[in-house]
Amino acid sequence: VTVHIIPVEGIGEVRHGDDLGDLIRAATARAEAALQDDDVVVVSSKVVAKAAGLTLRPAAGEDTEAARRRLSLTHEVLVETPHVVVVRTPSGLVCANAGIDASNVPGGELLLLPEDPDAEAEAIRVALADVARVGVVVADTFGRAWREGQTDVALGVAGMAALRDERGTADRDGRPLSVTLVALADQVAGAADLVRDKAAGVPVVIVRGLRGVVGAPGRAADLVRSDATDLFPHGRGWLARRLATGEGRAMRTGPPAEWEWDLVRAAVGPEQATVEGDRLTTAEGYAAAIAQACLLDLGYDVQVRHEDGAYRVVAGP
Amino acid sequence: VTVHIIPVEGIGEVRHGDDLGDLIRAATARAEAALQDDDVVVVSSKVVAKAAGLTLRPAAGEDTEAARRRLSLTHEVLVETPHVVVVRTPSGLVCANAGIDASNVPGGELLLLPEDPDAEAEAIRVALADVARVGVVVADTFGRAWREGQTDVALGVAGMAALRDERGTADRDGRPLSVTLVALADQVAGAADLVRDKAAGVPVVIVRGLRGVVGAPGRAADLVRSDATDLFPHGRGWLARRLATGEGRAMRTGPPAEWEWDLVRAAVGPEQATVEGDRLTTAEGYAAAIAQACLLDLGYDVQVRHEDGAYRVVAGP
Repeated sequence: VTVHIIPVEGIGEVRHGDDLGDLIRAATARAEAALQDDDVVVVSSKVVAKAAGLTLRPAAGEDTEAARRRLSLTHEVLVETPHVVVVRTPSGLVCANAGIDASNVPGGELLLLPEDPDAEAEAIRVALADVARVGVVVADTFGRAWREGQTDVALGVAGMAALRDERGTADRDGRPLSVTLVALADQVAGAADLVRDKAAGVPVVIVRGLRGVVGAPGRAADLVRSDATDLFPHGRGWLARRLATGEGRAMRTGPPAEWEWDLVRAAVGPEQATVEGDRLTTAEGYAAAIAQACLLDLGYDVQVRHEDGAYRVVAGP
Repeated sequence: VTVHIIPVEGIGEVRHGDDLGDLIRAATARAEAALQDDDVVVVSSKVVAKAAGLTLRPAAGEDTEAARRRLSLTHEVLVETPHVVVVRTPSGLVCANAGIDASNVPGGELLLLPEDPDAEAEAIRVALADVARVGVVVADTFGRAWREGQTDVALGVAGMAALRDERGTADRDGRPLSVTLVALADQVAGAADLVRDKAAGVPVVIVRGLRGVVGAPGRAADLVRSDATDLFPHGRGWLARRLATGEGRAMRTGPPAEWEWDLVRAAVGPEQATVEGDRLTTAEGYAAAIAQACLLDLGYDVQVRHEDGAYRVVAGP
């Protein structure tokens, strides 16, 4: 079955206090964009933030880039170079400049991320519910690790599945499918971006023809990796920043697993140290520092104590 | 303008030696899937690999998971845990299990990634050129950092732009757009996946209605981040593995930048060490190891020499 990606024309500049549900109802009243049951309505997070008034003016004499950097550094920092700051937001989103936008905002202000995009998506879904039974995605444009360019991803989801779970289903030969969890709402957000021209301002797009998607429970929070499964929690230079500033958060609580200790022991030089429970003991400062760095990199908080001629490196607070 | 995502039905199991161009010509001859100029044809990398015969049988007595892990570990390893191996392939793709697929392959064999997906995409484009002027994307399903679930991305591109460069264009207020490089081919690949059901086998999808895309030069290699801009080159535990095995590759060549030395000095304790050019000198083993770990994390090769009571930590081979 063909899927259609339909831009909704005619939504002008969105301002603080505007009712997005009303604006979308009016703009989709035209025949070609008339909402149908099972449509997914993809709304740019920029207009959600504008309607909510989430703009900030830089301090007096501060340029927008400096203000954006200052605000970004109030978050958990994964990478800080002179050119970019990548952070993890309180809701777990990893993004450059904390997702703060300096373009398409009148007056040189900064535009923040919506505070609860799942709730914003749900409010839009409810506002449209008497027109049609739709799903809603609040989408923003993020960079990716390892790949050039940005794609749109789902920050908020309502009235539809965020992930399509194919675990437990079998391929055509009956073997379990190894790729099993499709990031459906992210792919919907990216598909919607295909009909957007960012400069032209098409903040609402309809994705029509998806089957078995609308009506299932889902939220964008499901798309955020947990600490336990996050394999890339730290960017280039994170370790030095962590040691220099003391800032940072443990992704794991101790004691480390046996395979982790095996790795740390191998890095340290196995003859240099003994391990018991959550701690490694060594007489050598060099070995102690290697163990500390490796345990931090593995996601643990680390304390180093130097007593009675021995270093004790403890994985934990 | 609406974009249409059209599944191409009727392509059966693809086998070694099959001509994909012929298969796609035959399957798209039907009216609803008849190719038009400016269509993008999205082809699953699985069928590209099958047609090229890129299957491998596990060794005698070896199960498919063990064989996949063994093959994955021949690549540059970014993360190795008991449960998963994430590697960077020679062409720069970062993916779990080296992109080796164990599902949907008859007989329990493993399916490798296509060796030159841009060339495979170009061959399909040329084979279809007398039917219509199309772009081609060879798509595969990859996980992402920080986000749950997989999305389809473009491994190969021909006859179309891989990225849409909006740098230099202005927003509606005339300010430069800060999000400026759209990963177009990845979003096309993800959109195509919306009409696929992986278990049902829809290896070819037409994306119709994109404007200004087909005919522009592009290749999927453009979507791979260079070492210079890669901010997440290492996964959790990479440092310990790097120190334990000695394997690994420098992303950067020295000497480190001044801001990097500032960070390393701050991590080491500024009174502990002096820095000159590409090297740090300290009397303390603890400080030397911290500097070594931080420079590795920043992407440099590091040598540590202990001579005349001083440690010299050199960023470089």
